[in-house]
Amino acid sequence: MSWLAGYGKLDDEENDNLGVDWVLQYEFGDIDQAQAITEFRTLVRDLTEAGLRVQVRHGHGSSLLVFLRVPRDQLGRMVHQSRVKDFLFGIIHTLPDGDENTTADSESPSEELRSVYHAVSWSKELGGAGITPNHGKWKNVTASFPLHDQDACSQLLRQWSRKTNLTIKDLDTIRALFGEKVAFYYAFIHCYSLFLIVPAVLGIIGWLYLGPYSIVYGSALCIWCVVFVEYWKIREHDLAVRWNVKGVGVLKVNRAQYQWEKEVRDPVSGQVMKVFPGWKQFSRQLLLIPFASMAAIALGSLIVVTFASEVFISEVYNGKLKGYLEFVPTILFSLSLPAITSFLTSLATRLTKYENYRTQDLYDLAQTQKSFIMNFITSFLPTILTAYIYVPFGKQIVPHLDLLRRSGLNFDMASHAEFEVDTSRFQQEVIYLSMTAQVLGFGEEIVIPYVKHVLWQKWRDYRDRQHGLTRQRSFSTATDLLLIDPPDEGKFLKRVRSEADADEYKVEDDILEMCVQFGYLALFGVAWPLVPLGFLLNNWLELRGDFFKLTLECQRPPPIRADSIGPCLLGLDVLSWLGTLSTAAIVHIYRGPMAEVKLSSLLLTLFVAEQAYLILRFTVSTALQKIFNGSSRREEAQRYALRKNFLEASHTQSGSPGSPGSRVRQRVRFHERVNVYGSEPTPSPDGSPSPETEKPHDDVLRGSDREAEFWNGLSCDTSDAGVKMIRALSASKVGDEPKSTKEA
Amino acid sequence: MSWLAGYGKLDDEENDNLGVDWVLQYEFGDIDQAQAITEFRTLVRDLTEAGLRVQVRHGHGSSLLVFLRVPRDQLGRMVHQSRVKDFLFGIIHTLPDGDENTTADSESPSEELRSVYHAVSWSKELGGAGITPNHGKWKNVTASFPLHDQDACSQLLRQWSRKTNLTIKDLDTIRALFGEKVAFYYAFIHCYSLFLIVPAVLGIIGWLYLGPYSIVYGSALCIWCVVFVEYWKIREHDLAVRWNVKGVGVLKVNRAQYQWEKEVRDPVSGQVMKVFPGWKQFSRQLLLIPFASMAAIALGSLIVVTFASEVFISEVYNGKLKGYLEFVPTILFSLSLPAITSFLTSLATRLTKYENYRTQDLYDLAQTQKSFIMNFITSFLPTILTAYIYVPFGKQIVPHLDLLRRSGLNFDMASHAEFEVDTSRFQQEVIYLSMTAQVLGFGEEIVIPYVKHVLWQKWRDYRDRQHGLTRQRSFSTATDLLLIDPPDEGKFLKRVRSEADADEYKVEDDILEMCVQFGYLALFGVAWPLVPLGFLLNNWLELRGDFFKLTLECQRPPPIRADSIGPCLLGLDVLSWLGTLSTAAIVHIYRGPMAEVKLSSLLLTLFVAEQAYLILRFTVSTALQKIFNGSSRREEAQRYALRKNFLEASHTQSGSPGSPGSRVRQRVRFHERVNVYGSEPTPSPDGSPSPETEKPHDDVLRGSDREAEFWNGLSCDTSDAGVKMIRALSASKVGDEPKSTKEA
Repeated sequence: MSWLAGYGKLDDEENDNLGVDWVLQYEFGDIDQAQAITEFRTLVRDLTEAGLRVQVRHGHGSSLLVFLRVPRDQLGRMVHQSRVKDFLFGIIHTLPDGDENTTADSESPSEELRSVYHAVSWSKELGGAGITPNHGKWKNVTASFPLHDQDACSQLLRQWSRKTNLTIKDLDTIRALFGEKVAFYYAFIHCYSLFLIVPAVLGIIGWLYLGPYSIVYGSALCIWCVVFVEYWKIREHDLAVRWNVKGVGVLKVNRAQYQWEKEVRDPVSGQVMKVFPGWKQFSRQLLLIPFASMAAIALGSLIVVTFASEVFISEVYNGKLKGYLEFVPTILFSLSLPAITSFLTSLATRLTKYENYRTQDLYDLAQTQKSFIMNFITSFLPTILTAYIYVPFGKQIVPHLDLLRRSGLNFDMASHAEFEVDTSRFQQEVIYLSMTAQVLGFGEEIVIPYVKHVLWQKWRDYRDRQHGLTRQRSFSTATDLLLIDPPDEGKFLKRVRSEADADEYKVEDDILEMCVQFGYLALFGVAWPLVPLGFLLNNWLELRGDFFKLTLECQRPPPIRADSIGPCLLGLDVLSWLGTLSTAAIVHIYRGPMAEVKLSSLLLTLFVAEQAYLILRFTVSTALQKIFNGSSRREEAQRYALRKNFLEASHTQSGSPGSPGSRVRQRVRFHERVNVYGSEPTPSPDGSPSPETEKPHDDVLRGSDREAEFWNGLSCDTSDAGVKMIRALSASKVGDEPKSTKEA
Repeated sequence: MSWLAGYGKLDDEENDNLGVDWVLQYEFGDIDQAQAITEFRTLVRDLTEAGLRVQVRHGHGSSLLVFLRVPRDQLGRMVHQSRVKDFLFGIIHTLPDGDENTTADSESPSEELRSVYHAVSWSKELGGAGITPNHGKWKNVTASFPLHDQDACSQLLRQWSRKTNLTIKDLDTIRALFGEKVAFYYAFIHCYSLFLIVPAVLGIIGWLYLGPYSIVYGSALCIWCVVFVEYWKIREHDLAVRWNVKGVGVLKVNRAQYQWEKEVRDPVSGQVMKVFPGWKQFSRQLLLIPFASMAAIALGSLIVVTFASEVFISEVYNGKLKGYLEFVPTILFSLSLPAITSFLTSLATRLTKYENYRTQDLYDLAQTQKSFIMNFITSFLPTILTAYIYVPFGKQIVPHLDLLRRSGLNFDMASHAEFEVDTSRFQQEVIYLSMTAQVLGFGEEIVIPYVKHVLWQKWRDYRDRQHGLTRQRSFSTATDLLLIDPPDEGKFLKRVRSEADADEYKVEDDILEMCVQFGYLALFGVAWPLVPLGFLLNNWLELRGDFFKLTLECQRPPPIRADSIGPCLLGLDVLSWLGTLSTAAIVHIYRGPMAEVKLSSLLLTLFVAEQAYLILRFTVSTALQKIFNGSSRREEAQRYALRKNFLEASHTQSGSPGSPGSRVRQRVRFHERVNVYGSEPTPSPDGSPSPETEKPHDDVLRGSDREAEFWNGLSCDTSDAGVKMIRALSASKVGDEPKSTKEA
């Protein structure tokens, strides 16, 4: 990160990236040597042709690390051109100064890295090297990533651990280091956590004075959900404007896999667009419905079976080994879930590929949508089963689980008469979800992968050293020198090898996790008022943990731009809708004795709750849009300023003589005129020009002498004429009276 | 309409407008002569100062007609400047050619008239004459209107009577004559009528084979409603793009009555904006809720009382005069409704004024919203009462109406035992609404006002002639000449006087009427499958009748621009939502024997219907947006082209030497750089420039010699180095095997 070289500790050898912009990992363990050599030569040639400086070192095992650096003047040109493109597509509203050869300083490391990313990944026609890792020709390029800025990351992490609340500056820093897509996640978790303070405080009060299933707390929670989702939409828009990424989706390049049906050249702008018909894509998207149903059935039946057998063993079965058997269903579930999920995910990927999106963004969006559905089912279905099936109907259903006795086998069964549904089971599950599950999830997501990654690195280092020992005997000294890290590069290369082995960071997963948390709160939060408090504490840790994961466990993600958290936004909407229904139902069912609940009154509650939700959402969204309209106004002002500049520039230009110039072509007005008489224009006699074209700007009145007479008719001044008339008319009006008096 | 002078029949004296652009009517019957003279002199002075040509003639009774004409070169300049303003605010995307003194030909009469309208009505600071009819200083100016283009209107009306379907050209013609706001109404009724063909055909099939209250027909109707509303949104957007009015609300001038709290100068564009805080406006808007409740109570109780007494008289009362008494409630209702409505309307107007909107557009929108609520209640409540109260619960409720007997009076009552609710009453009402009421409404709206207007004109002419006779004796010949119409202007002036007396055309009322019709269909259409057919036939006539009304009964409206049919769009959404619920409920209640309907199953039906509606609406809106994305793409392309032109212009400019020019100021990048280290920037020692500013584009590697060593380190070519490593590493990998073989 040469940009940062100006700051901080240059003496810290370990953290210096040695001017490396980008790293590729080339693995050749699975292919034969000749092919590997050809491929590698092509790789280096492609990179060099794209104007990149290339350096190579060996990686772990049978892999090479290719270090790339974009010469600074080329990089500056790319940054400038990228800004010009932003301008053309309306992302920014001031034209960057300069011509085609201008070089621009980047505003942030992420802007610089984005250009590097484009230089590496864009196709050759667009001026890149066309390296698509893990795909097609380059399927042996197994990793493609920029290096972490160790100094900045550790400093940021240290700062965050000392303070409780992030500021907008911190978000700007995230954006500067990792790009807008990642920054939007941190902005979201930050905004969400701040909002959580309200229900957390209400929850404490509710816990002390109201107890669970309170109508007041439930209503407050629903209102909070709606307000939060609507506010986030506005906040997201604000941030998109602040970060100059509003509408950034349009300028993304086509995916390599995109198939279009026709090329359309736009008559106005001259751009060639590769078009795939919208209705076709939509009809393909409709396959989402069978997919969702299939996922629901597959995951749902797994969950139902697990749930049923767990209930059976814990509540009905009373035989030997009960203590061990109780864990069997959960273990079986945990073992079969990954298989089913990975099958569904592969299906989802095939579907998304078939849907044929133009840009990677849209592709990711569609894929996230599908994983959102799967996540939704696995996360919420068990609790939904407990809340709406097991507790209310357990007494009727559980005895039927007793299939074994019916089938004639004779186990020691708990007596049916004894069976009582544990009504607190639902609440216990909610408490577990908001406390234990969050902590476990944190460990599973952050601690375990870190330990695994560290151990794996140690093992590889050990193996490499072993190989190194065997190898030394058999090669020339020159080659040996290549295979031994120079002493002052040692630590650097070790770090790069570790990063090359690390996972890719998927910000969508983190966003999804937060959405699921929001879903728990919206759907089941009313069962235990301390849920938001638990989530709030968890999120304090989660935010820092995620940043730790991002910087120390994962490869630095390419700084991709986005103007939203993506499809999860729709998910939040759906969750707050379902949350209202669920909260209303839970309060209705669990507040009083369950036996007294009537279906009709429950349905009435739900129906009323839904109307209230719809009206509330409309009101809140209208109100917030009215109140927080600052950023749209600023955006409008910027657009206005651009056009004003254009106008002034065009005036200056037309003022200076001898610049025939590239002015905007004005349309020919006469032929485009709307003929108000409809389809029958009066043809003017051939040859003779129509009276209109003859003297278009002439104020001599046309038509006939009548017009001229009308306008010049009165001999005196108009004003005087009017006054005379007023006198005459009001006299004649008033005159009626005196006259009649006279006559009398 | 000089623009049209080129076309058509110049010889037709009666239809010639004599080059008059605009007419004001000044009435002085209520004020004394001296004041009238002063006011009139001021009026003429203001108009002349604004550059208008003024001519005066006497009107009916104590009124003067002031004829205005904008000189053609001034008009051309105004048209050009209006286009430049459109460009600046992003309404159009090509900069009109020319400088400040360019005159432009207008594309259509309405564009020309809009500029005339601005010249008359805009405040003096904006370059107009500042005439605000019926308001403040000019409250004696009772009419302000352009003259109808008789030729074009009659030709269009004749054409339309011959064909069944309008084309987009006809809509363009309407737009060219009356402006976009009116054209949107015709586009709406046209689109709606075309869509009506589907349920009309389904309805005929349903009527023949399914009968009323069919589930299939009901579902089809609900789907149709949703599809129509979502399609119209897209169609509206398309038309707004076609007519270059997208987002036209932003450039409207402030209302004279607008009160702002502070003036904000935008730092980017330099515009001064007069701001009234959004939250304040929203909190004032919340008064809509008490208003709506009040309207509901006032109108609702009136309707309920009328309904109850009608039922009482027709079903319970059996005494003398029954035949006459039956009509009493309806008559009382019709007599008291206008009073209540006008009271509510005045309340609504006060509310809207208090809400303090910036532009006339927003003001009209808010006012329409309120009249929509009132209309909704008066139109739908009676039928809702019949459908959901009277028919299902009549048997229980009606006997209680029998208050008279209980109060001890002894009338001849129909026996209670005999009382049976007439279950077909609901269907009869729907049939009445879709057939008789539409025809009656047409008569009331179009025929009666026309007859009234014609008779009124005759009466005024007669009276004026009488006055003329009395007057002749008492004034000088010069004044007499002023008061007698010149023979060749006679017919023209007669027409202008008639137009000055005509009503203003309110397009909102016509749109509202269509929305109410759509509401009937959505809410009650399932009760009688032929409803859409009736509406379709009615709309054929309605469209022509409305055009007749617009051209022959009303003043020509000022050609105001709009990009939507306004708040009715939200109304359509609400109606299709309520329609789904209502259809589900009606089908559920009326399909089988009414006694068997259970509350819980009814609620379940409603609940399911609502979810289906929400999902359907989401799907339909997503699908239609995907499929009909042509116009947004075109708009985007236009924006792109603008920016490209700007870029090219700026290159040309910077290329030509000696034009320092008004180029876009580039921001200073260094200071705006995001400091990724958060809040602790490393201060560079004073005086010495930081290494960055020293050589920003230098590709000599900085930092330390280590970087240089890394990049230049390997003695041989990178590609060769890599190849050597591949050989070495794959050999050592493969080597393991042979070695062990060797050892073995």
